[in-house]
Amino acid sequence: MAPLLPTIHDPSQLRQMDRAQLKQLADEVRTCVLDNVSRTGGHLSSNLGTVELTVALHHVFNTPHDRLVWDVGHQTYPHKILTGRRDRMPTLRQLGGISGFPQRTESEYDTFGTAHSSTSISAALGMALAARQKGEDRHSVAIIGDGALTAGMAFEALNNAGVCDDCKLLVILNDNDMSISPPVGALNRYLAQLMSGNFYAAAKNVGKSVLRAAPPLFELAKRLEQHAKGMVVPATLFEQFGFNYVGPIDGHDIDSLVPTLENLKHLRGPQFLHVVTKKGQGYKLAEADPVAYHGPSKFDPAVGLVKPATAPKQTFTQIFGTWLCDMAAKDARLVGITPAMREGSGLVEFEKRFPERYYDVGIAEQHSVTFAAGLACEGLKPVVAIYSTFLQRAYDQLIHDVAIQNLPVVFALDRAGLVGADGATHAGAYDISFLRCVPNMSVACPADEAECRQLLTTAYEQSHPVAVRYPRGSGAGVAPPQSLDGLPFGKGEIRREGRKIAILAFGTLLYPALKAAESLDATVVNMRWAKPLDVELLLKIAGSHEALVTVEEGAIMGGAGSAVLEALQAAGLQKPVLQLGLPDRFIEHGDPAKLLSGIGLDAEGIERSIAQRFDSVVSAGKTRPGVV
Amino acid sequence: MAPLLPTIHDPSQLRQMDRAQLKQLADEVRTCVLDNVSRTGGHLSSNLGTVELTVALHHVFNTPHDRLVWDVGHQTYPHKILTGRRDRMPTLRQLGGISGFPQRTESEYDTFGTAHSSTSISAALGMALAARQKGEDRHSVAIIGDGALTAGMAFEALNNAGVCDDCKLLVILNDNDMSISPPVGALNRYLAQLMSGNFYAAAKNVGKSVLRAAPPLFELAKRLEQHAKGMVVPATLFEQFGFNYVGPIDGHDIDSLVPTLENLKHLRGPQFLHVVTKKGQGYKLAEADPVAYHGPSKFDPAVGLVKPATAPKQTFTQIFGTWLCDMAAKDARLVGITPAMREGSGLVEFEKRFPERYYDVGIAEQHSVTFAAGLACEGLKPVVAIYSTFLQRAYDQLIHDVAIQNLPVVFALDRAGLVGADGATHAGAYDISFLRCVPNMSVACPADEAECRQLLTTAYEQSHPVAVRYPRGSGAGVAPPQSLDGLPFGKGEIRREGRKIAILAFGTLLYPALKAAESLDATVVNMRWAKPLDVELLLKIAGSHEALVTVEEGAIMGGAGSAVLEALQAAGLQKPVLQLGLPDRFIEHGDPAKLLSGIGLDAEGIERSIAQRFDSVVSAGKTRPGVV
Repeated sequence: MAPLLPTIHDPSQLRQMDRAQLKQLADEVRTCVLDNVSRTGGHLSSNLGTVELTVALHHVFNTPHDRLVWDVGHQTYPHKILTGRRDRMPTLRQLGGISGFPQRTESEYDTFGTAHSSTSISAALGMALAARQKGEDRHSVAIIGDGALTAGMAFEALNNAGVCDDCKLLVILNDNDMSISPPVGALNRYLAQLMSGNFYAAAKNVGKSVLRAAPPLFELAKRLEQHAKGMVVPATLFEQFGFNYVGPIDGHDIDSLVPTLENLKHLRGPQFLHVVTKKGQGYKLAEADPVAYHGPSKFDPAVGLVKPATAPKQTFTQIFGTWLCDMAAKDARLVGITPAMREGSGLVEFEKRFPERYYDVGIAEQHSVTFAAGLACEGLKPVVAIYSTFLQRAYDQLIHDVAIQNLPVVFALDRAGLVGADGATHAGAYDISFLRCVPNMSVACPADEAECRQLLTTAYEQSHPVAVRYPRGSGAGVAPPQSLDGLPFGKGEIRREGRKIAILAFGTLLYPALKAAESLDATVVNMRWAKPLDVELLLKIAGSHEALVTVEEGAIMGGAGSAVLEALQAAGLQKPVLQLGLPDRFIEHGDPAKLLSGIGLDAEGIERSIAQRFDSVVSAGKTRPGVV
Repeated sequence: MAPLLPTIHDPSQLRQMDRAQLKQLADEVRTCVLDNVSRTGGHLSSNLGTVELTVALHHVFNTPHDRLVWDVGHQTYPHKILTGRRDRMPTLRQLGGISGFPQRTESEYDTFGTAHSSTSISAALGMALAARQKGEDRHSVAIIGDGALTAGMAFEALNNAGVCDDCKLLVILNDNDMSISPPVGALNRYLAQLMSGNFYAAAKNVGKSVLRAAPPLFELAKRLEQHAKGMVVPATLFEQFGFNYVGPIDGHDIDSLVPTLENLKHLRGPQFLHVVTKKGQGYKLAEADPVAYHGPSKFDPAVGLVKPATAPKQTFTQIFGTWLCDMAAKDARLVGITPAMREGSGLVEFEKRFPERYYDVGIAEQHSVTFAAGLACEGLKPVVAIYSTFLQRAYDQLIHDVAIQNLPVVFALDRAGLVGADGATHAGAYDISFLRCVPNMSVACPADEAECRQLLTTAYEQSHPVAVRYPRGSGAGVAPPQSLDGLPFGKGEIRREGRKIAILAFGTLLYPALKAAESLDATVVNMRWAKPLDVELLLKIAGSHEALVTVEEGAIMGGAGSAVLEALQAAGLQKPVLQLGLPDRFIEHGDPAKLLSGIGLDAEGIERSIAQRFDSVVSAGKTRPGVV
């Protein structure tokens, strides 16, 4: 058979294909995904799992007129390959290349930008109701995973969609029984029951499982008829929410998918299709270990993932994971909480060693924080391990349930600052600004691995909430001490004594700042705390220098540098201050070092910015020969 | 009968009472609630609805050892009356008085501070699991309304609680078929089905309604037995989530409540009790119009609410409501969205006139914003009417779904700044700080009613997201124009020409600032926009004055004043700046004017702060006789 994929320039071509061609095309798309991801790195398991579903959706629906909204969106490589971006797949997630997620600016087929989970039903409902209001005849389809369905906003959307009897909305549950961490909670247990067929059979008095290879067309037709006649007692959760529930069907079987989707397309009102897929489908190594192949770096598909010959530098995530275990061993009150990020947040070892104090609450950031508040009320010491960007989901809970009650909850904020390949949606850019303004909150910014461990201890020792923010990946490589000693609360330190100019560093940019300071002979202060600010040290430094520079891997607006400005003004001091940090625009995906360099936050950039702004100060120093 | 309530000093006394006494006590508590609220103002309907439930809970459970977590908490007046705070009820919601919500600092019976909705199950689950970990034998009870149950975080909590087979958690659904706005969504429809008994009967093959006056003890016993034997097919939503579901029972019938709670107390694992109550129960006027009596001001119980003789000043909420209708009449693309705050946000008239463009999504802030983003993707123009404090619930959605995609969504932020009687939990103190740092966002701060209308128009005309923040209540009383003309985007204006000192006001504090400026002969600038800042105007003013003062009703940390500091430094200007705004602590409930005065944000306070800080500048000006 001649290859089909090279001939596909537009998904409308899929609408002309017969089933055999669609199956062949799916196989080619799968190979294309594997080839590309093994060369670029990226998400693999999830994309191997959505190949047939993607082919079937573009075959049945009139995209882009009909709207596909992919939840999370890391499973959209097949979609990208089929919608004109096959040639750009080698640039995936790289600076200037295509995004690893849907982006409205990238393609008209990307109807809604996603990356955080559980937004798709809300967005698709908005599109469906806009179509209704505008009198446009189009379908809106949300494709959401079982993990994403545990997040509250997905339920908020189901609750609203379920009563829209005249909208053309289809929600497809892509049930692969796995978010990044293992599935948790009652919903997952319920879905397992649904899939087992036993529950379904009992509730419906249907004597056989509906999950089978052949398309359940007879079954579907019968149920649709019953539904229309109001004969079906709402039995599944989704029917109780007002959806017409169909499934579960095999999501790798084009012969099931196509006729089912065709049928659903002709129904009005909210439709719910339960599709069962397998992460890593078609690549044995990924099927066997979908977690390892969730987001691999480059690898040889014939060999699979191999352990690097030299041990990589410890990441901040690992530093946190070790600290958590050590502190838990010392203090029986410690509990660790993660919203579905066991691996990403470094809790694998903690779960093994302290299973009774480990809580993976699923993708449920809001609950994770208020749950922690409840635990703290009873004298336990919760540590919420959460990415900076996902804490945005629990901002109100942090204020209302933790900060107002001044409860001692530690927030271990991973992925603070730029995150690289995941791009703007995942950047931990705003935490200093949105946390600093909240009374009772403290925010620590460790400069390296050793300080990360030490400041986590300091945070844990406080009787009020503290966030410790640290970046993705590794830092300067400063080995942490074995001990569990903290650093002084709210205190910074002078790291380099220089003249005229003082650089105040908040976090890991201390190291490029130290490098930049050499040629400038600048003083460098490791501020460590964005809140409380070490005002005493600040005023001392301000008094002995002509100009100050603040450096942070966070938004300049309202960030730690602004805390410095506020403190200087409160003390009645006027002093030139240059604020270096993340600019007021979203930074796209790319190699983290290149991104930082691009916005002047490497050593050269910091030196350049200081020299430009404080030209007179710098050159005055440089032109004074004889002064040591 | 001798009155019982005056003899109650501790809820343990309730445990000694028989049913007749409990009923009498409930009647006395109801009278006490009505007496007090009619004198102080406060929440009424909800508290009349929870009298019997409160009495029954304190009778059956060993409070405070057993934990009661009241969701939202505005229905806790009976609880306060029975837990040692009867005498302090006349101080309710007043400065220095008791809070209108539970507060941990107020009583050991207030186990968890609430005010925002839907947090109770998360908190109670935390308490239940803490008890398990600590080996303490106690019950944790969450009491949540049907409105609050639509919020996603309640579902996140149910999803986690439903698998905790060995915890002592009871969730009580206080189903009164009414959040503040009328109920919406599939869940409400579902609860109505449950209550009708038809669904229940069909699903269970039980031939009769279970909602009846007599306690359904036989029914309960039978079901518990079936449950224990695994004979019951999980049929209700709550059973599908892993709870043992009991109900619905009459929440005003002590004879139903007490034995049911007694029975549930002896069961392990997550229990769910569905209680049906009536808002306003026992006070005919409130029963007939529970919305009007949701949160009345003082009134004569014998007469009820009366319209004030003179029309009160228009509130900002009303200004917004009128603008929304006028703009909707002009632009067919406009859609209005509220998360369950039709009355509070001023959308009553809009719903009447434009029902097909009105979306009350229920208590679902996260969904409201992403839903708006979906509508905006299709070319509609969504206006999300939301309290500043509740936007905290949708912060991630604002960043991830609206700002990154740069969609033209207008956020009409009501209750910005201090809110008075509702206290710290409801303060809109942080919005400038948490919005300003987000790229693509703009933030407008109208100084009065006229500007509110004008800046809403300006916001609506932009092709990117804009928030317009305005306070609770009324302002200076500047009548808005009839027209729908906007003001220049990102531009301020000089309101008073003075000397040496310039006050830069953001929002309604412009008026006290103008008053303060008189004796100081200060310049006053109405900045109007926290973002983008009118840098051109700022630099002009900075160049012609010796000192600047920023004034805003929002957190100083990271707020509009800090934007001024950032802009001055970016321009290389050093200038003394005094930042006036909300301090870095939570401000409790009380009269808004008194609260503002207490933190120096009235005219006198502003003048005093400026005189103190810029003593030399001010007195230098005053001691120059002859200068006009």
